[in-house]
Amino acid sequence: MLEISERANNMPSSPIRKLAKYADTAKRNGIHVYHLNIGQPDIKTPDCALEAARNVDRDILEYSPSQGYASLRTKLVGYYAEYGIDLAPGDIIITTGGSEAVQFAYMACLNPGDEIIVTDPSYANYMAFAISAGAVVKSVKTRIEDGFKLPPVEEFEKQITPKTKAILICNPNNPTGYLYTKKEMMQIRDIVKKHNLYLFSDEVYREFIYTKAPYVSACHLEGIEENVILIDSVSKRYSECGIRIGALITKNKKVREAVMKFCQARLSPPLFGQVIAEASISTPQEYMDQVYDEYLERRNFLLNELNKIPGVYSPTPMGAFYTMVQLPVDDAEKFCQWCLTDFQYEGQTIMMAPGSGFYTEPGEGKDQVRMAYVLNKEDLGKAMIVLQKALEAYNAQ
Amino acid sequence: MLEISERANNMPSSPIRKLAKYADTAKRNGIHVYHLNIGQPDIKTPDCALEAARNVDRDILEYSPSQGYASLRTKLVGYYAEYGIDLAPGDIIITTGGSEAVQFAYMACLNPGDEIIVTDPSYANYMAFAISAGAVVKSVKTRIEDGFKLPPVEEFEKQITPKTKAILICNPNNPTGYLYTKKEMMQIRDIVKKHNLYLFSDEVYREFIYTKAPYVSACHLEGIEENVILIDSVSKRYSECGIRIGALITKNKKVREAVMKFCQARLSPPLFGQVIAEASISTPQEYMDQVYDEYLERRNFLLNELNKIPGVYSPTPMGAFYTMVQLPVDDAEKFCQWCLTDFQYEGQTIMMAPGSGFYTEPGEGKDQVRMAYVLNKEDLGKAMIVLQKALEAYNAQ
Repeated sequence: MLEISERANNMPSSPIRKLAKYADTAKRNGIHVYHLNIGQPDIKTPDCALEAARNVDRDILEYSPSQGYASLRTKLVGYYAEYGIDLAPGDIIITTGGSEAVQFAYMACLNPGDEIIVTDPSYANYMAFAISAGAVVKSVKTRIEDGFKLPPVEEFEKQITPKTKAILICNPNNPTGYLYTKKEMMQIRDIVKKHNLYLFSDEVYREFIYTKAPYVSACHLEGIEENVILIDSVSKRYSECGIRIGALITKNKKVREAVMKFCQARLSPPLFGQVIAEASISTPQEYMDQVYDEYLERRNFLLNELNKIPGVYSPTPMGAFYTMVQLPVDDAEKFCQWCLTDFQYEGQTIMMAPGSGFYTEPGEGKDQVRMAYVLNKEDLGKAMIVLQKALEAYNAQ
Repeated sequence: MLEISERANNMPSSPIRKLAKYADTAKRNGIHVYHLNIGQPDIKTPDCALEAARNVDRDILEYSPSQGYASLRTKLVGYYAEYGIDLAPGDIIITTGGSEAVQFAYMACLNPGDEIIVTDPSYANYMAFAISAGAVVKSVKTRIEDGFKLPPVEEFEKQITPKTKAILICNPNNPTGYLYTKKEMMQIRDIVKKHNLYLFSDEVYREFIYTKAPYVSACHLEGIEENVILIDSVSKRYSECGIRIGALITKNKKVREAVMKFCQARLSPPLFGQVIAEASISTPQEYMDQVYDEYLERRNFLLNELNKIPGVYSPTPMGAFYTMVQLPVDDAEKFCQWCLTDFQYEGQTIMMAPGSGFYTEPGEGKDQVRMAYVLNKEDLGKAMIVLQKALEAYNAQ
């Protein structure tokens, strides 16, 4: 019979996708929609990256090696060295976006039924890829009232069963903006070591840390070198999400060999993406500084504006460009939809990502939304006025 | 414990990958290696495609829609119409290479343990992706002495169990070059219809059909419109394997919705690849004709030269740019390796793909190799001399 697979049925339908249709309708009706819902920066891609794409001088756009070009992997070694991460080109496998790196890590390390522990809330696609791989996601709750800090280590211990194979962290965190402290990272190391688990560490936002606290990579942790699989991507740091270049990095040779089998099956990562990524590593520090300053200013501005609105609360994110926001509504998903279908203020409205989509536990985060500060300050300001007016109107109903 | 997943352990290690190391060593020793082993054409990518990449005028290399750009999907509708395949843009989902289309078809339609029937020999990665998805591959044998034609329909019936969910065909075929006749396609239709199976049809070589026989697409078959999932790619037809753009095409809305969930999880297909693919559809007919003539001439030349060598036999491929060749050796994998490690003729040797890698049944195809005629005629001629000398030397041992 022509049935859809169970795994497809179990794949989460992103609430954002549902809202996207309503946003399209609103736009067709002439309403300006401020997109706070997606992680697509409005920042210009560095010139050197765009230039590299224009200057590709090849007659044949042929397959690249399954592990990615050696020149890109070699240049990345230098990039990581600046963060105190000591790698050889052979430790790096180029993937089609960070997404594929997560997928391959799961595929290579997890059997169907194996468990992986994530912190709740988490990037929704960690769950989606787990379903693809037949793995089971367990979660350790972090709380908005605690600023989403890591809960006591005992909470992790409680979730560990004989089926547990891995812990996955995202640091700095999407969606919370939380940055793990050195102490927390050491605690994670101890659990990983004690139970001999894999540690999948997604660190694609390392350029965007707004506190004086140090960036502690999973690759800095001593004694678990064979356990760590670093998930990375050039998408966010050079504002080039569309080129689909990420990396899976590990000192564990067996894991690399296993991952390579999946890499070989899909033949190669995108050619142009690799050329652009390689050029991007030479982006002038000035560009990086400007982008950093821009995000920092937006963060400070957004958080200030948000917390002025009655009933609204968001802890100050320490990194990345997202923040989880508590709203004075019962059901943020309904409110987000209502903003697009039934509300406008001076011809404007806002689109936000419902918080529940980031939690593995049903019912969690119902009064939360995730906002990405990927708009300029002026637009953020207008969006905050719209939010305040929308909340007033919604709660007056 | 830090174990590799069973699925990774079960993934086939491509014998070509093993040979690649020996080829590298041979090259380092100054030996010229004729690569008959891979489907990477030496044909130049069309100018309009290269031009499109140079002219990308964007400030931000942002995510594209998960289903691919509407402009590309719309233009593809016109391309397929020329082959009598009637589609709407919404029937087409752009994937990261044809590889991802196969993966997503499996992921969306097959549960772990579900069975899929392929013809043996087959493109090795059909098996690899099945392992990724937990699906079980059953096979129907085609024989070199029959020119790899479809066996009697009863052979398919014999393989069908309550777990059978799909039949996968590749037409024109990689690795055999076989082209299914109208009658054979109708037989496949009848089985698919009778048992209500999915029909995954990989037709990426439709431009390369060297006989007067008609190209019968799975999409031409009446009465199984909801069953057919077309796997496609621009890689081969425009010699742009590196851009990683393929498509999954189906009239089955439920399947498209299921596939879209996997598409959304991986965010988007490559931006530059889509721009290049879209431009490629306007490739002048003159280019297509030249490429066609070139492959046709190579095919005729190669087959003639091959079948002159004592003990060597290859049926004449009707399409694609591969042929399966029977060699007068016990173990073609050993012979292929020996050619790279222990043989040279006037500073030259050849690399071929061992036939066993294309068979699901262990022990099958042991005296066969797959050759791709992706070299110019002069090089093919030299490679054939090397092959003859190698066989003489090997069998004189």
